[in-house]
Amino acid sequence: MGPRRDVRLRAPTLGDVAREAGVSPSTAARALGHYGSVSPQARSRTEAAASRLGYRHNRLASSMITGRTHTLAFVGADIGNVFFAQALRGVADVAHEAGLEVVIANSDEDPALELAAVRTLEERRVDGFIIAPVGEGASDHIAGLLARGTPVVFFDRSVPGIDVDAVLIDNVQAARSGVQWLCSMGHKRIGLITTGLGDGDPTELLERIAFDPRPASTTDARGAGYLAALRAADLPVDPSLIVDAAYSRRDAAAAVADLLRRDSRPTALFTVDNLMTLATYEAIQQSGLRFPEDISLLGFDDLEWTTIVRPTLSVIAQPAYDLGATAARRLLDRLAGDTAPPQLSLLGATLIERDSVCPPGGC
Amino acid sequence: MGPRRDVRLRAPTLGDVAREAGVSPSTAARALGHYGSVSPQARSRTEAAASRLGYRHNRLASSMITGRTHTLAFVGADIGNVFFAQALRGVADVAHEAGLEVVIANSDEDPALELAAVRTLEERRVDGFIIAPVGEGASDHIAGLLARGTPVVFFDRSVPGIDVDAVLIDNVQAARSGVQWLCSMGHKRIGLITTGLGDGDPTELLERIAFDPRPASTTDARGAGYLAALRAADLPVDPSLIVDAAYSRRDAAAAVADLLRRDSRPTALFTVDNLMTLATYEAIQQSGLRFPEDISLLGFDDLEWTTIVRPTLSVIAQPAYDLGATAARRLLDRLAGDTAPPQLSLLGATLIERDSVCPPGGC
Repeated sequence: MGPRRDVRLRAPTLGDVAREAGVSPSTAARALGHYGSVSPQARSRTEAAASRLGYRHNRLASSMITGRTHTLAFVGADIGNVFFAQALRGVADVAHEAGLEVVIANSDEDPALELAAVRTLEERRVDGFIIAPVGEGASDHIAGLLARGTPVVFFDRSVPGIDVDAVLIDNVQAARSGVQWLCSMGHKRIGLITTGLGDGDPTELLERIAFDPRPASTTDARGAGYLAALRAADLPVDPSLIVDAAYSRRDAAAAVADLLRRDSRPTALFTVDNLMTLATYEAIQQSGLRFPEDISLLGFDDLEWTTIVRPTLSVIAQPAYDLGATAARRLLDRLAGDTAPPQLSLLGATLIERDSVCPPGGC
Repeated sequence: MGPRRDVRLRAPTLGDVAREAGVSPSTAARALGHYGSVSPQARSRTEAAASRLGYRHNRLASSMITGRTHTLAFVGADIGNVFFAQALRGVADVAHEAGLEVVIANSDEDPALELAAVRTLEERRVDGFIIAPVGEGASDHIAGLLARGTPVVFFDRSVPGIDVDAVLIDNVQAARSGVQWLCSMGHKRIGLITTGLGDGDPTELLERIAFDPRPASTTDARGAGYLAALRAADLPVDPSLIVDAAYSRRDAAAAVADLLRRDSRPTALFTVDNLMTLATYEAIQQSGLRFPEDISLLGFDDLEWTTIVRPTLSVIAQPAYDLGATAARRLLDRLAGDTAPPQLSLLGATLIERDSVCPPGGC
């Protein structure tokens, strides 16, 4: 396991540092543990002494005293997905700048995994949580955190009935604007490619969501925006144009391929997240249809590849990094003692018009 | 900040759990802290009592006793880059399965940031480190970890002179095979698009690297493989075909555009990582050259978009998730007491032949 010293000197203690610095041990502990009140002089003398002696501060012991672990928990759906990876980068940059660490967990959109992650991380005494909540079924574990005084900030989605800080985009409005743009190009048969919508009549499901100001699921909210745009344009909602696919590139591509083979196929598609967009792009390419003349596509999330595919992809872009960074700043404010009522921060989404959308039949 | 209970009962203590279970407090502490020796009966009685009373074990206090925090540190270059995001997902899956948490840091390929991250995380007493080392300049901080008995596993790259477990692909060999394939198609002027090569004659730099069995930088190792393939094919090495670009999509695309405008331009390009590949793909698209007839491209990393661009992209694919998962398993073995000599695990890379490569002038 690499080099080891044969002879070890006794490691310097906090008492050694205090003696060297000419301060009391409790002052030295406060200075090195970054808690309580210490004069600037005492702090700098203590830090210099610690550095001279090669003293390594034990933050674990310090956490036992302060009750703070200087750690945030980031609970996303899948850190391997580029949206969550960029949000995490935003969280990490803000947290590290403030001297906090970030511990991560993946929920895979499974309420049981989210619950297990929150329980375990609470046992580890993290200072606060940044969560993209799964939101299905019970959310007692999140209410429990709040009851015990641990701050929680939601990002990407929120949970109805749990009133905490949330950093979101207005998914209903963003989707509505995007689909209105498709309508304004003359499209009357617009398909929705979504995932996890659940059992029942899709129109009724989306109708119900449309009246919820903060739907739990981003994909449902975007579906509700789709519905609202059709209503506003006086277009009928045709359930056969709504595809509720499994969350898998292959399965979603197969479902879209089925839709495009029908005689009564749509002239435009709207997809609700980056995996559905990728799968749909691929299905259109393989359908033999002219793209975009026969079938237009508006996707969600502006990924790095959207400008190098042909046609380039029109998308609704969301600020993934900023969602994470803003959530982290809210959490830091709470840890610093901010007791204002919970805030809803809505960040802007942007419609980016590129070549994958044209009027039905071509320009 | 959400719901709070108005009346709180006193939280149950470890003593309450011990009384309820009919065991001594120290037995209860060992059972709930997963350390020391406890009979199966005492363990199950203690766990049942803790569950009945709603006792929340304080892992922080337990860590003070065991010296273990059940936390791994993951130090990658940039968690926002899909390669590191997928490697982290592999680390997290293995760690969580074993009941360990994962704390993250980004080095941005800056030795000073890596040093700061390692120091801070060591203060936090993480149990071990998984690092994609920057490797430039001093690596005393890593030697220091080892000297203090904290296990370290390298992934993606290693550091000459630091003998620890490492999980890598054979970058020299993978690049060499890829470039040999370009040679076998008849290409004689093959460009290398790399980054961070440093000052000096590129041929000499790569020559030196080619004789290092474990180069610190993956991009340098891939450049060395390029050089080895040219030598093996008796092709001259033309330094004017080697582009050492800044690590930025825009700057790299501009540098490749310059190369493609020359009269003596190459007929094929080999790129050393996913950002260079994206930038180069874009530069070729905008050059007005026929792709692949006038210019072939072989990239590194198989990303989700490589099959939806036209032409589809030939790549050397590396197993990002498995690199992370394998590194995590090595670290768990070390934490479990494995004292075998450091292991070098070489995972396979795969050449995937798609449409972006053809013989010079077309098929």
